[in-house]
Amino acid sequence: MAHLIQDVRITPVAFRDPPLLNTVGVHEPFALRAIVEVVTDSGLYGLGESYGDAKHLTRLRTAAAELTGVDVWHTQEIARRVRGSLARGQDSGAGGHGMSGMVTGSSTADRVLSPFEVACLDIQGKAIGRPVSDLLGGAVRDRVDYSAYLFYKWAGHPGAEPDEHGAALDPDGLVTQARRMVDEYGFTAIKLKGGVFPPDEEIAAVQALAKEFPDHPLRLDPNGAWSVATSITVAEELDGVLEYLEDPTTGIAGMARVARESPMPLATNMAVVAFEHLRPAVEEDAVQVILSDHHFWGGLRRSQSLANTCDTFGLSLSMHSNSHLGISLAAMTHLAAATPNLTYACDTHWPWKAAADDVIVPGALRFEGGAVPVPTGPGLGVELDRDALARLHEQFLACGITERDDTGYYRRTHPDFDPTAPRW
Amino acid sequence: MAHLIQDVRITPVAFRDPPLLNTVGVHEPFALRAIVEVVTDSGLYGLGESYGDAKHLTRLRTAAAELTGVDVWHTQEIARRVRGSLARGQDSGAGGHGMSGMVTGSSTADRVLSPFEVACLDIQGKAIGRPVSDLLGGAVRDRVDYSAYLFYKWAGHPGAEPDEHGAALDPDGLVTQARRMVDEYGFTAIKLKGGVFPPDEEIAAVQALAKEFPDHPLRLDPNGAWSVATSITVAEELDGVLEYLEDPTTGIAGMARVARESPMPLATNMAVVAFEHLRPAVEEDAVQVILSDHHFWGGLRRSQSLANTCDTFGLSLSMHSNSHLGISLAAMTHLAAATPNLTYACDTHWPWKAAADDVIVPGALRFEGGAVPVPTGPGLGVELDRDALARLHEQFLACGITERDDTGYYRRTHPDFDPTAPRW
Repeated sequence: MAHLIQDVRITPVAFRDPPLLNTVGVHEPFALRAIVEVVTDSGLYGLGESYGDAKHLTRLRTAAAELTGVDVWHTQEIARRVRGSLARGQDSGAGGHGMSGMVTGSSTADRVLSPFEVACLDIQGKAIGRPVSDLLGGAVRDRVDYSAYLFYKWAGHPGAEPDEHGAALDPDGLVTQARRMVDEYGFTAIKLKGGVFPPDEEIAAVQALAKEFPDHPLRLDPNGAWSVATSITVAEELDGVLEYLEDPTTGIAGMARVARESPMPLATNMAVVAFEHLRPAVEEDAVQVILSDHHFWGGLRRSQSLANTCDTFGLSLSMHSNSHLGISLAAMTHLAAATPNLTYACDTHWPWKAAADDVIVPGALRFEGGAVPVPTGPGLGVELDRDALARLHEQFLACGITERDDTGYYRRTHPDFDPTAPRW
Repeated sequence: MAHLIQDVRITPVAFRDPPLLNTVGVHEPFALRAIVEVVTDSGLYGLGESYGDAKHLTRLRTAAAELTGVDVWHTQEIARRVRGSLARGQDSGAGGHGMSGMVTGSSTADRVLSPFEVACLDIQGKAIGRPVSDLLGGAVRDRVDYSAYLFYKWAGHPGAEPDEHGAALDPDGLVTQARRMVDEYGFTAIKLKGGVFPPDEEIAAVQALAKEFPDHPLRLDPNGAWSVATSITVAEELDGVLEYLEDPTTGIAGMARVARESPMPLATNMAVVAFEHLRPAVEEDAVQVILSDHHFWGGLRRSQSLANTCDTFGLSLSMHSNSHLGISLAAMTHLAAATPNLTYACDTHWPWKAAADDVIVPGALRFEGGAVPVPTGPGLGVELDRDALARLHEQFLACGITERDDTGYYRRTHPDFDPTAPRW
């Protein structure tokens, strides 16, 4: 039976986000996402989730208009039409990255393709009564480990009451945050978003975490905030403490210089964010761990291909996350489950999201011992809660945010803030 | 509905093969293949085809015994079990390559996995009423171009009557062979298996083909018969005549030295035959075209991943063939159809096979204008002819051949023959 695309609905949504600090500023009160629904003439629908920035929404809508009539099994044809829609629009590829300017070199076509491909896999799975992981060769594990993703953060948004998470602006604050997160979710690995305070303070924070959580692998990610020299110094200071150091500095050349001196592997979701970056990265031996992300690597199948390429070229693999909702968590979990060489715990912003703020029917996804059991129902295994979707869309319209702007938001309280890298 | 593997049948078969010459000898009167049938508890069966050499048959049988109960959608679990079966047998990986000693570095696990993966995809497709190409992201072309695969050949096997193809031992003979093959099949590209006569004679043959077929892209494949110096000389002589030169010399280092001087791209199915060879090949820029082959690259999904890796690293892609039957042709066609960057005509030995010698029900595959229309029925789109299978199995038992041995067969009439490369 054919399942031809009859309609594609793209709904921008916003969900509350705490004031999480990073090297370019601080998270605004709302994070944006686009919810993609692909509907077939056979009456099935599939879900995808992507960035919600205005420029990206425009691209999604332009591409969506060209997908009518395509069979949901023909994802390569969908990719071709997505590329065509960008080419016809003479899209420069600028903007719409949804990552606050920290990741700017990813493939526009792969970013736009991703939610449509995921939605089509969701429909394929529903049509044949199989989980998406089966469409990827089958799960090789029945639960996917995620890491506790720590952030320096303010107690609350400026002018608002403190939030439930409280402040974390020093080692003690981060240890408290980690303890609460580990207790609640059972995480067995910990990542700290750094690049916020001078490196000595962040080294002290990591050392405090190591002391408190001696059995938890630790990672530090300053988002390229450091010079090559600073990166090497920090790497040496944290020798034996970090399982990997993530994006200490920017660019393949800079990462390569750090890698030559670093005692631990370097990971990246900034220097290598598209297939075209792999060859130079391999040639310079610039990174040892790729943080994959199906949202910018073109969907689940292309992310699996990335995984195989990593295996082929001796690169390790972990997974990056932005602030996201349940559709993305389901897709990440299916992908990770069906990726044999994805052996690190994956990143997720999940604990920072209010449980009530989602667009899926509750109960499909849960954390047990720091891991999400892989859904075994048809497709992604999550269903759209249309009331919740409407509510989060209203929230999107009301919040007034149309482009993620961590820097601009930070500057409202710190007008002289300069995020230019390297900051240290 | 689950489709669990209940039984795996492996049937060695033999089919008549003309005396085709190559640099290590000549094809024996029969070529061997293994026909793999995977049967599920749901009553479906899927087909795979692989090498028929004794050592490989043993490995296939050992692996097959471990597949009972696995869901046919869980091909990664099947891969894990295949690797396990080899590891437990402490298999050294030697032998069983089915390629007459010319290709010896391919992955044993990928060779053993391949027919099981193809058979499982065949069952998946049958179960959901979809062609295998749909399981690979959908066909991006509805017909797959193949090339005319010319061989120097004797008029007939020693002691036998001349065969229908006649002799081809000089440029005129090859032009006649090409004309007949192009007229019958409509091929739009031509490949010559070389490494048989001194390079000057093969250069003359290619030039004669170029004169007779000025619009047909040409390729020459001496299977590594030449030294680096000879390879460079031939490449220069055939500048502007060949679309690519295939395996002029052996090894990544040697190919890299030729590539630096060669005016045309170098292709390989000898120097890069496993994922582990890609990194050194890329680092040395040793080859420009990978001749993929799902029989030794681990099946269709892994071959697609190879294709994506080639795209990522700026390598072109074509497809290699051994003597094969209809199951392989169907699988090759689905794979090529669903591989966007497979833009060269694929190799096939098909014209050398007697039409009556096959194990599939006739009519599913046909050539039109040098191309095979991609089957659109469920699975591979071919069905087993059990009478034909029994006949070709009897032929296997009767022919007495258990390991391909082109060199030994050639030496029966030329006792002093030495195939050691480089021959020139």
